[in-house]
Amino acid sequence: MYLETIDGPHDLLALTSEQRVALASEIRRALIHKLSKRGGHVGSNLGFVEATIALHYVFQGPDDKIVFDVSHQSYTHKMLTGRKDAFLDESKYNDVSGFSEPNESDYDLFRTGHTSTSISLASGLAKARDMRHGSGNVVAIIGDGSLSGGEALEGLDFVGSELNSNMIIVVNDNGMSIAENHGGLYRSLAKLRESQGMSPENPFTALGLDYRYVDKGNDIDALIEAFESVKDTDHPVVVHIHTLKGLGYAPAERDKEEWHWHSAFDESTGKSLKPHQRTYQTEAGDQLLRMMQRDPEVTGIIAGTPTVFDFTPERRAQAGAQLVDVGIAEEQAIAMASGMAKGGGKPVVGMYSSFLQRTYDQMMQDVCVNGSLATFCIASGSIWGANDVTHLGLFDIAMIGNIPGLVYLAPTTVEELDAMMEWSVAQTDGPVAIRVPAGQMRHSGQRAVRRDYSQTNRFEVTQRGSDVAVVAAGDFYHLGEQVVDELQRTLGINATLINPLFISGVDDTLLRGLQRDHRVVVTLEDGILSGGFGQKVAAFYAPTSMRVLTYGFAKEYIDRFDPAEVMRRNGLDPVSITRDVERALRDAQGNTQGNAQGTMRGGAQSGSLHGTEASFSPTVAAA
Amino acid sequence: MYLETIDGPHDLLALTSEQRVALASEIRRALIHKLSKRGGHVGSNLGFVEATIALHYVFQGPDDKIVFDVSHQSYTHKMLTGRKDAFLDESKYNDVSGFSEPNESDYDLFRTGHTSTSISLASGLAKARDMRHGSGNVVAIIGDGSLSGGEALEGLDFVGSELNSNMIIVVNDNGMSIAENHGGLYRSLAKLRESQGMSPENPFTALGLDYRYVDKGNDIDALIEAFESVKDTDHPVVVHIHTLKGLGYAPAERDKEEWHWHSAFDESTGKSLKPHQRTYQTEAGDQLLRMMQRDPEVTGIIAGTPTVFDFTPERRAQAGAQLVDVGIAEEQAIAMASGMAKGGGKPVVGMYSSFLQRTYDQMMQDVCVNGSLATFCIASGSIWGANDVTHLGLFDIAMIGNIPGLVYLAPTTVEELDAMMEWSVAQTDGPVAIRVPAGQMRHSGQRAVRRDYSQTNRFEVTQRGSDVAVVAAGDFYHLGEQVVDELQRTLGINATLINPLFISGVDDTLLRGLQRDHRVVVTLEDGILSGGFGQKVAAFYAPTSMRVLTYGFAKEYIDRFDPAEVMRRNGLDPVSITRDVERALRDAQGNTQGNAQGTMRGGAQSGSLHGTEASFSPTVAAA
Repeated sequence: MYLETIDGPHDLLALTSEQRVALASEIRRALIHKLSKRGGHVGSNLGFVEATIALHYVFQGPDDKIVFDVSHQSYTHKMLTGRKDAFLDESKYNDVSGFSEPNESDYDLFRTGHTSTSISLASGLAKARDMRHGSGNVVAIIGDGSLSGGEALEGLDFVGSELNSNMIIVVNDNGMSIAENHGGLYRSLAKLRESQGMSPENPFTALGLDYRYVDKGNDIDALIEAFESVKDTDHPVVVHIHTLKGLGYAPAERDKEEWHWHSAFDESTGKSLKPHQRTYQTEAGDQLLRMMQRDPEVTGIIAGTPTVFDFTPERRAQAGAQLVDVGIAEEQAIAMASGMAKGGGKPVVGMYSSFLQRTYDQMMQDVCVNGSLATFCIASGSIWGANDVTHLGLFDIAMIGNIPGLVYLAPTTVEELDAMMEWSVAQTDGPVAIRVPAGQMRHSGQRAVRRDYSQTNRFEVTQRGSDVAVVAAGDFYHLGEQVVDELQRTLGINATLINPLFISGVDDTLLRGLQRDHRVVVTLEDGILSGGFGQKVAAFYAPTSMRVLTYGFAKEYIDRFDPAEVMRRNGLDPVSITRDVERALRDAQGNTQGNAQGTMRGGAQSGSLHGTEASFSPTVAAA
Repeated sequence: MYLETIDGPHDLLALTSEQRVALASEIRRALIHKLSKRGGHVGSNLGFVEATIALHYVFQGPDDKIVFDVSHQSYTHKMLTGRKDAFLDESKYNDVSGFSEPNESDYDLFRTGHTSTSISLASGLAKARDMRHGSGNVVAIIGDGSLSGGEALEGLDFVGSELNSNMIIVVNDNGMSIAENHGGLYRSLAKLRESQGMSPENPFTALGLDYRYVDKGNDIDALIEAFESVKDTDHPVVVHIHTLKGLGYAPAERDKEEWHWHSAFDESTGKSLKPHQRTYQTEAGDQLLRMMQRDPEVTGIIAGTPTVFDFTPERRAQAGAQLVDVGIAEEQAIAMASGMAKGGGKPVVGMYSSFLQRTYDQMMQDVCVNGSLATFCIASGSIWGANDVTHLGLFDIAMIGNIPGLVYLAPTTVEELDAMMEWSVAQTDGPVAIRVPAGQMRHSGQRAVRRDYSQTNRFEVTQRGSDVAVVAAGDFYHLGEQVVDELQRTLGINATLINPLFISGVDDTLLRGLQRDHRVVVTLEDGILSGGFGQKVAAFYAPTSMRVLTYGFAKEYIDRFDPAEVMRRNGLDPVSITRDVERALRDAQGNTQGNAQGTMRGGAQSGSLHGTEASFSPTVAAA
């Protein structure tokens, strides 16, 4: 085993060409084995083994700086930079994250997870080096469909003329995005591959960049030669390498889309160990297909992630021309939806909460300022979404819930999701976003399902009680039911339960009505509290005597977490909430009587003035 | 006069070639005259007169659809589409906005104001047309530096291979952005101009687009010929036209940057009627220059808008290599700042609040997830910023104030602005944004200026009183002073005045302390209430008996407004606020006594339960 001798990139220098090839095989075997146990990015990493060895052979990190885009293809890099045990020893599998992580190693420069950022980030490293009269190469890796993202294109354009110093952009061209590639750029890359880099339609030289093509992108010697030829360049240069996604694992070579990311699998057969599970995203995709069949003007728009609607190649074929995949180009997806709407079309965009962050301006300007009749299905906006720090789905309510003119709906069941999609596509009031739940699939059962959401911000009382009202949004409606049960059980309170349905505003009339016989209102939302839904309820009642307890998540970054643990830590369980409510009720009472009647003193009164905040769980008043 | 005979584009068809040239002169004269009185986008419109005539001669709107990018160069378009009086008759000058506006005309398809959107929006129109089996040309106009924006590049890439039907992209190439152009793309455009379109380094063909060059971009006949040759094309085609920015007005031809947008001026001399005024942005620029001189590693980053630091060409020369203008590429600017910070540099980004919207994801992922030590000066985040609907500066607190890891500071004086910039560049805690005020410049005078902001969210009590506390942020601190005065004058209340300094969180300790002898807390912020600073204060006190009145702006789009009027409408004046405080105090009292003593009844009690919300100004509880 050569891999066991590699404690850092310098150990590569001792290996012969043949030994480096053997090392690549060992790495590949380790990758496949770990991935079969834990799942992860299979195809992208298998294709980039040789390039990573060559990069670390030629460039001397951490002085030379290698920036990975998305960094989902950095597994080999981790193995070569002192972290091999996390791939060889099953008991240490969890020692590394699936992305580059400066806390793990000096060789990891950024925490990245979104696409299309490496060129811009690297341009900053290069500029800082120049300003400080430093030295060293700056290398940006990009590929796997990331080039079509606006940030990458802005970066290429900038580097192409404004950075007149060393920078190397390695374009890892495996002919694929997550699914197939989209966009003229990828057509040009194909022509460059066919012509051994000679095609005149070269997007890199057209942006002012020097260019070099390496056809054998899985040949370590060829790569070493190419990288050595550009090392210490005095100007930016693109090295376009042609790699094979999934190389070395037959199933991954055969079905590149399926194996871009894969859950744990049987190593010998490639069969998934986890059967396909229906989720709310499957349901949203089904509903979209049903609407498409009924109405040829309904058009789905996705940005490189068909999984957002659980759209397999078969389901995409079913949608046909009624589905537009713009590739990794979220801004294009959202703005195009606005254009389609103005042209009389019926666009339904599917996007993950985390990637929606790319489109704040397009949502604000292209869509909402124009009141375009587009529907946005936002997936994985939940603590049960992705659990790495760069893909958190906890910010979308705070982000788009405050954009004027946008209605943000939060279904709590399959039937509500369907009804909201149906209504949104048919209505003519304005843009609508729907937060596709991420928790366990639930059904409305006996509960009535609203069909018409045109009265904005009209909440639904699903159980009428008094004293305490629980406003439980989307994914957390079920938690709301549990809280109501616990209040009954523990305190004998027959609480009111409300399904707000809308999370971008509050139902003034309903909230005002609660003041008659309620003293405490609890809000529950599956997102950060700061800027979110609960704070709107809190602000509504702020000038009144109503006590409001808002539950959601603290404004913080969390990484590789257990959702249950994070919920507990944020006080999101029926027992803690019930305890908080009990205190709030006592405090409200104490405050009223204590202030008015000088004879009452002690616990209740002092509690009302000093004990309040200290006694609530930290999230209650978190900003 | 031919212009007077033009009621719509069809009237152009009756004109001869010579008459069209005469018409262009008349339009130009009207433009210059109106612009001299009212100010506006001078150079961009003067350069695009002939192209607009040719477009409307060849394409038959509104069936053929013309989408303007930014739409700041749409004045001639407005004149030719039934709105000439708004340019000929001074009493009607205000009848049209400075941007395209569907409410004015069917020929205006979108409300636009941000750059780089036309291609994406038009691609949606084209796709909707195809889905509906419709007909008609879709034309996107782009230029003036807008091509370098990520959304435009994503759009070009998409259209280049995915839209296999009619679409025409007119690239208005005047060799300029607002200031000079930046990026490899513009270098390629220059080579295409020099080679009459023959240069092989062609970014459009490299993205799969058909291409055509028109050198005489101010020759109506040449343009008509070119547009006719691509009319009804069955695939996307770029028509690259070479125009002269400012054509026909000597001062604007000479100094293209100065005349991109210009305030009212003396028509004969070109001298501005409004002398240059020092603003907080000038101060931020001065401070940045001072810091640059002391420390060669301090680097300013701007994205095509040097005015954000009031950076004239002279001041830019002074900054030298310590200033990077990335061109219109906001995502690149923010991500590059993160890279520079990680490389040990000291980046200071200047960006307008409205354009910061382009970078939510870069702020979140590239900067904050990485804790990069970058400083962001956010300008025009204020009701006193731009007053058109597409450039509102009221959303930035709600947008970035809820991003974990970002400290958002709001100076209230020149001295605080300087101190915050100074501190931010020196500190090593994390990313810092500073909201450069937009109101009247004020000085700290006797007030102490804090130098160290490392204790996050520590507010400053500037006047210690009781009963009522006024937390007045940034630009609105002065209003807070007026409220405190009015409370004293009218109600005899010696209120506490607080300068929060931080607007991305609350001072738990200080707010808790206020509970001892305060019953009402007022918050004032120069931004929307929804998701903003005041709601954080409201949420903090939500579980307590404190009454909180939050003041700011409703979540709505406003256009061509009078800031004073909008403030009044949102209850933002000392008299209204004092009246609200009086009610809240009475209500708090009534609630306490009314509930506790059955003998009290009538006004106070019923007011506490029902009258509360109705009696407050509408914004107080607005969500």
